[in-house]
Amino acid sequence: MSEKIGILAIGHGSRLPYNKEVVTEIADTIAKKHPEYIIKTGFMENCGPSVEEGLASFEGTGVTKIAAVPVFLASGVHITEDIPEILKLDPETNEGKFAVDGKEVPVVYGKPLGHHELLADLVFDRASEVL
Amino acid sequence: MSEKIGILAIGHGSRLPYNKEVVTEIADTIAKKHPEYIIKTGFMENCGPSVEEGLASFEGTGVTKIAAVPVFLASGVHITEDIPEILKLDPETNEGKFAVDGKEVPVVYGKPLGHHELLADLVFDRASEVL
Repeated sequence: MSEKIGILAIGHGSRLPYNKEVVTEIADTIAKKHPEYIIKTGFMENCGPSVEEGLASFEGTGVTKIAAVPVFLASGVHITEDIPEILKLDPETNEGKFAVDGKEVPVVYGKPLGHHELLADLVFDRASEVL
Repeated sequence: MSEKIGILAIGHGSRLPYNKEVVTEIADTIAKKHPEYIIKTGFMENCGPSVEEGLASFEGTGVTKIAAVPVFLASGVHITEDIPEILKLDPETNEGKFAVDGKEVPVVYGKPLGHHELLADLVFDRASEVL
């Protein structure tokens, strides 16, 4: 059986719609560019789907492995503590298991965005727009 | 007198060092690429300099205008309410004034990063790293 990869894009969530919009647009863009992957979203706070609901939404997709990736600029307490707890990751390996379609599939955990020159260019553009 | 522009890169802040590291790296990269601008940082929570301290650090630089830009992925309550309050922005114009070197200089307010195809590429890379 060939591998079928799922990516769970985890957003912070917000009472306002913008965080969900940006994370969903990022997920949609990944899905368009990489149609062989199954992309889902989940949010930590204030909006749905929750991370648990995001994971559960892989049901029926036939994924054999899931990469959970925090769509956060930088690491922080959500990344180091809260998300690993929700995903029930082994603290030694940073990996977990989740039951999809009656089978346990491995869940691996990616890093947040981190620094990138393009982020600096984007921030500079955002300044230039109002100067 | 010619314009001298300051950019205040505003980060969320965190108890862990990563948010400050990423926002500072972004500010350093902008400063390197645009040496004619004065770039400072300020943080909302849990680490310094605060936004007020970041603004105050333009003292002595001779800036004639400041663009305050939230280094956040998406808009949210910090962006729409908390930062405008700290910057004392006029709710009509989204602009303010801040005293630097004994003169009132205008403060304008930029948007957060928002969706960008490169962000989707970065998230996909973060997934690929652990798959």
